[in-house]
Amino acid sequence: MPHTPEPAPESAPESESAPTPFTADDYRARMARAAQSAADAGLAGVLVAPGPDLVYLTGYQPTAITERLTVLVLTAGQDPVLVVPTLEAPDARHAAGAAALTLRDWTDGKDPYAVTAPLLDKQGRFGVSDNAWAMHLLGLQQALPSTSYVSLTEALPMLRAVKDEHELARIAAAAAAADQAYGEILKVRFAGRKETDVAADLAALLMRFGHSQVDFTVVGSGPNGANPHHEAGDRTIERGDMVVLDFGGLKHGYGSDTTRTVHVGEPTAEEQRVHDLVRTAQQAGFEAVRPGVACQEVDRAARAVIADAGYGEYFIHRTGHGIGVTTHEPPYMIEGEEQPLVPGMCFSIEPGVYLPGRFGVRIEDIVTVTEDGGRRFNATPHEMAIVE
Amino acid sequence: MPHTPEPAPESAPESESAPTPFTADDYRARMARAAQSAADAGLAGVLVAPGPDLVYLTGYQPTAITERLTVLVLTAGQDPVLVVPTLEAPDARHAAGAAALTLRDWTDGKDPYAVTAPLLDKQGRFGVSDNAWAMHLLGLQQALPSTSYVSLTEALPMLRAVKDEHELARIAAAAAAADQAYGEILKVRFAGRKETDVAADLAALLMRFGHSQVDFTVVGSGPNGANPHHEAGDRTIERGDMVVLDFGGLKHGYGSDTTRTVHVGEPTAEEQRVHDLVRTAQQAGFEAVRPGVACQEVDRAARAVIADAGYGEYFIHRTGHGIGVTTHEPPYMIEGEEQPLVPGMCFSIEPGVYLPGRFGVRIEDIVTVTEDGGRRFNATPHEMAIVE
Repeated sequence: MPHTPEPAPESAPESESAPTPFTADDYRARMARAAQSAADAGLAGVLVAPGPDLVYLTGYQPTAITERLTVLVLTAGQDPVLVVPTLEAPDARHAAGAAALTLRDWTDGKDPYAVTAPLLDKQGRFGVSDNAWAMHLLGLQQALPSTSYVSLTEALPMLRAVKDEHELARIAAAAAAADQAYGEILKVRFAGRKETDVAADLAALLMRFGHSQVDFTVVGSGPNGANPHHEAGDRTIERGDMVVLDFGGLKHGYGSDTTRTVHVGEPTAEEQRVHDLVRTAQQAGFEAVRPGVACQEVDRAARAVIADAGYGEYFIHRTGHGIGVTTHEPPYMIEGEEQPLVPGMCFSIEPGVYLPGRFGVRIEDIVTVTEDGGRRFNATPHEMAIVE
Repeated sequence: MPHTPEPAPESAPESESAPTPFTADDYRARMARAAQSAADAGLAGVLVAPGPDLVYLTGYQPTAITERLTVLVLTAGQDPVLVVPTLEAPDARHAAGAAALTLRDWTDGKDPYAVTAPLLDKQGRFGVSDNAWAMHLLGLQQALPSTSYVSLTEALPMLRAVKDEHELARIAAAAAAADQAYGEILKVRFAGRKETDVAADLAALLMRFGHSQVDFTVVGSGPNGANPHHEAGDRTIERGDMVVLDFGGLKHGYGSDTTRTVHVGEPTAEEQRVHDLVRTAQQAGFEAVRPGVACQEVDRAARAVIADAGYGEYFIHRTGHGIGVTTHEPPYMIEGEEQPLVPGMCFSIEPGVYLPGRFGVRIEDIVTVTEDGGRRFNATPHEMAIVE
């Protein structure tokens, strides 16, 4: 039997004090700000679908996202209205933000777009959650042919991007939990076990340190590490492998996302050189962070280090993404993104080098923008750890 | 310590032979049929988003559904093209249906709609997956202003509805596993335990009997049972409670979804009467099933029994929904749905009565349409089981 992490002491997550819950007033303020931002952007309102936008604005998360229409309608100067299936109204009434909005329910067999249409300006242009179902957008376009729509990422990309102090505390706590998980995973055996076994250990560790949800546990060993989106497979990890570990999820409703690349036994000189390069690139990206700098500058800073060393073609993804109530959201650290950084924004910086058929290296921290620079939420060392 | 289910014998799921995997030829045939159905319906093609449609048509399921565009383009007479982010192309290449399509990848920073647009008829009308992201639909509408779109549920609602023999075998196996889970849950203690404890038992049992994914484990005790979308909460189950148990997930890629309502100790005469009523309604719905009958007739048959007994206002949802690669899809057994039943369709029949603040009863089987009637995939008794 391979060594596996100790079982969680039952009191572990509970022994840590849970953060103060967001109140109806918090959600009221968020909804008012969203409606005002929409008005400022020339929109008639915002249509919010179940998912991260709705969680952020109301605290409401339906049991499942289905074909039944649920939509929050925000318009400046009017009270927020949440349209929900009658079946789900009792759950919606218990959402933390329910007191800050009006529920309007519709019953199976009725036309939900006919219920929603009277809430909307018939000639208006609306921001709509990126992940709203196409079916629902088409239903509204049909019910109100003179309305027009734009995705929230295009219209109000920074809606959830700047975090307040309570949100920052949650993201810091999620990162600290991910750091604890990383500290423990270094103690498990890698050689001779499958990637999926180590991934299961990582998932258990994230839960042990207070995550309520694990979103991904990438274990990319040897050549699998060269595919940045590889999760974890049946490959047995061998002595001599580089192993990319990229893991995260939600703790108290906010995301973690950390990558470290470890080595089973001693690395070769080339492996060490590539790891050092990625580490230097990550540091360069971090040092570019300060208020007013465009997101793309963070990407450029990290990318320049890798390109200058001749590995530019092997860094095949953007440098980072925002994090909040999801593990993946605006702002994006990517060429072409001119959005200036603002204190309170939180995002990953995660350059990588991927040598097809051989190995990959990625190093990722979650960072926030401060008044005069950046601050890392992850505190574990960037040195290549040697595992057994 | 309450009694909990025995731990799974490690060999349990493996001892059962896994079904033959679907081949690239199977997926090629499904894609060709979808493209032809679209042409027959006057559409220029079908745009398939990650999720159940894409799994059904290609076997490909991205690690995560994100803001990065992945879309399968099907047009009659042309080879299928799957547009994917470069990052995810290696995974897509390993999908079971990959040999039956052409991959076209796009790199971070490029415009994915500009990559997709040349594949589409610029004046065409396209069916689009219900759950495609609004952001992506808006991107296509902007890139090709003369195209138009309709949701697949509206355009081709029966795309996945009629199951072939291999699919039927999978749905039967998932139902049998759910039946086994139900058989075991009757042995656990209910009184004095929280709903969430029993829900965790149900989830563990579904996994023990070969599910790869648990989608829901509703445990609605006493008054919570009167909210049909209640999942499971902190309420402690008491002697004298009715308890609605509604659970399901995926086994070998196909869904289970079963409801039984049990009682902790002896029921009252009224509880027994309501349970008998729902049981009779479920039977009436089942007996309405045969080829050529409209879906709404199944709803009407079940609803009439409940309405005639004076409980019509307490049956607040449709009678059923299709099941396949999801636990929730067309065809819907609902008033207004005139789609005729076709042999091979699979769906739930799940009438219920919900008495606010008191208790609820629901009984649900998965049923398939045969050449001359219906066949239940669930075989556990409908009698109200008495639990401890």
